[in-house]
Amino acid sequence: DSNLKLFALNSNPAMAQEIAKVIGVELGKCSVSRFSDGEIQINIEESIRGCDVYVIQSTSSPVNEHLMELLIMIDALKRASAKTINIVMPYYGYARQDRKARSREPITAKLVANLLETAGASRVITLDLHAPQIQGFFDIPIDHLMGVPILADYFKNKQLEDIVIVSPDHGGVTRARKMADRLKAPIAIIDKRRPKPNVAEVMNIIGNVQGKVAILVDDIIDTAGTITLAANALAEHGAKEVYACCTHPVLSGPAIERIKNSKIKELVVTNTIALTEEKKIDKIVELSVAPLIGEAIIRVHEEQSISALFD
Amino acid sequence: DSNLKLFALNSNPAMAQEIAKVIGVELGKCSVSRFSDGEIQINIEESIRGCDVYVIQSTSSPVNEHLMELLIMIDALKRASAKTINIVMPYYGYARQDRKARSREPITAKLVANLLETAGASRVITLDLHAPQIQGFFDIPIDHLMGVPILADYFKNKQLEDIVIVSPDHGGVTRARKMADRLKAPIAIIDKRRPKPNVAEVMNIIGNVQGKVAILVDDIIDTAGTITLAANALAEHGAKEVYACCTHPVLSGPAIERIKNSKIKELVVTNTIALTEEKKIDKIVELSVAPLIGEAIIRVHEEQSISALFD
Ligand SMILES: Nc1ncnc2c1ncn2[C@@H]1O[C@H](COP(=O)(O)O)[C@@H](O)[C@H]1O
Ligand SMILES: Nc1ncnc2c1ncn2[C@@H]1O[C@H](COP(=O)(O)O)[C@@H](O)[C@H]1O
Repeated sequence: DSNLKLFALNSNPAMAQEIAKVIGVELGKCSVSRFSDGEIQINIEESIRGCDVYVIQSTSSPVNEHLMELLIMIDALKRASAKTINIVMPYYGYARQDRKARSREPITAKLVANLLETAGASRVITLDLHAPQIQGFFDIPIDHLMGVPILADYFKNKQLEDIVIVSPDHGGVTRARKMADRLKAPIAIIDKRRPKPNVAEVMNIIGNVQGKVAILVDDIIDTAGTITLAANALAEHGAKEVYACCTHPVLSGPAIERIKNSKIKELVVTNTIALTEEKKIDKIVELSVAPLIGEAIIRVHEEQSISALFD
Repeated sequence: DSNLKLFALNSNPAMAQEIAKVIGVELGKCSVSRFSDGEIQINIEESIRGCDVYVIQSTSSPVNEHLMELLIMIDALKRASAKTINIVMPYYGYARQDRKARSREPITAKLVANLLETAGASRVITLDLHAPQIQGFFDIPIDHLMGVPILADYFKNKQLEDIVIVSPDHGGVTRARKMADRLKAPIAIIDKRRPKPNVAEVMNIIGNVQGKVAILVDDIIDTAGTITLAANALAEHGAKEVYACCTHPVLSGPAIERIKNSKIKELVVTNTIALTEEKKIDKIVELSVAPLIGEAIIRVHEEQSISALFD
């Protein structure tokens, strides 16, 4: 379909190439560079007049650079008479700032939604929002894909025996339940509790992990504090092996050191956020969401339901 | 007036302190930091409910970081029930991307205006926009201050004799004219021309500079290519001494080397953009716009005209 144009910005060019291959198109020609003073310079190098344009960009680190690239690209596409501007944002940065936890805090996840709409986005396609409520921050259509089926398939193929799916906190139980359904496994929950202020947290485990292969599942792993403490607690409580998985490998600060030194045997992630070289360690396995996203783009473009992607 | 609150973000804290002193208030308490993954974390640490808030931030380099800090701060202020949110942006980043010079370019200066309004800005106070038309990109009030009087006063106090004010290109003649009026001096114009494609530019000079003290004036000096070539051409055409001045010292890439190696005797700039340590060379003189901005804030807050500031 010559009416569909796919463009990649700088957050994850390898994944964008893969998506283009799945869809069977070439990536559109554009250059995204910097002026001498650091301002973003964008040139779209082919006509997109009247086209349905899909722009691939995760707002991963450096988040402010990647977000501004995206906003400026949307502005350029709008002025070049694109028919629709569809944002493919495998990782939605600032998703954790989704509410006022204290007085006088911003709600940056909502600000980002407003900025994208103001720039001229017609639709957003994203994966595993930190809170599904962020969908309601938009007044344009949003398609919310899930990484769990991809992660579950990987573990299914491993044919591990006697597994238990573990949520590292109370917020993640629904996700663990979905994963467990696909793997026909029971679930357990890490129940962190601070008995008194200024006393170390106690890592309780609700559910049976003794002698089992535990698979921790989360949406985002950032500094890896929660997940590595959880893994070590599982080992202490008799788990035979501990795997961990997540959709979005933010892996900032001490994350890699912590994972290396933890009881985690293997960490399975997706490529919604590109792994830099120093993060490509033996313990980390990277799965691609390109087939899922490519299929979603085809369905959206042909105005078919995307829910079938999750059966 | 306890209803006026002044906050500074990270682009130029020293200037913000100076402005606070001029107005006679303390800077509001807020922390602007980064989470481990680079996302901006803002905490406003005092109540601003019902207040007229003034936020000081130049969108100088790193422009995308500074712009996002500002947008997130505006979001936080809006949600904390500020009565008005007044953006004091001494330097307006992306101002040079103010039109489509070629097909399929963004107009980022307009995008920035839209983003500020969407976030919740009530008013913008800025200095020497690259094109005064950018005022029309806003649907909220904008106060446009001028650096020329400050620069002109500096040269007046130097009591130089037989001066000529020089515009480094055709676009800057109006600015040179304003400066010349204040100094009761004639003007000259550098008339760059490329006789044929792929032939070096010829630096013609319109006006008489022979034996005179030439003062080049521009709004922005970025890589300093234009201004240093102009200075050298003036020297070749018999100018006795060459000074240069501008409001916004972007000074990126080779700028400092070029200035050091040029015929410029002294470069006079303002502090709309903070000079980093390596830019504080002997040839560069920094003037403060804090008294001007402070006075403008007082007048805006008291609903007086600011035009008197330029008499
Ligand atoms: N980039 C970030 N890194 C770490 N924490 C964050 C980040 N953004 C927001 N937060 C905080 O994380 C909390 C929300 O996370 P959660 O409780 O898992 O939904 C809030 O208190 C936020 O202030
Ligand atoms: N940050 C920047 N650095 C250098 N050139 C820029 C920058 N932003 C925009 N431009 C270009 O500068 C030109 C406008 O400058 P001017 O002709 O002086 O108004 C346009 O061609 C822009 O593409």
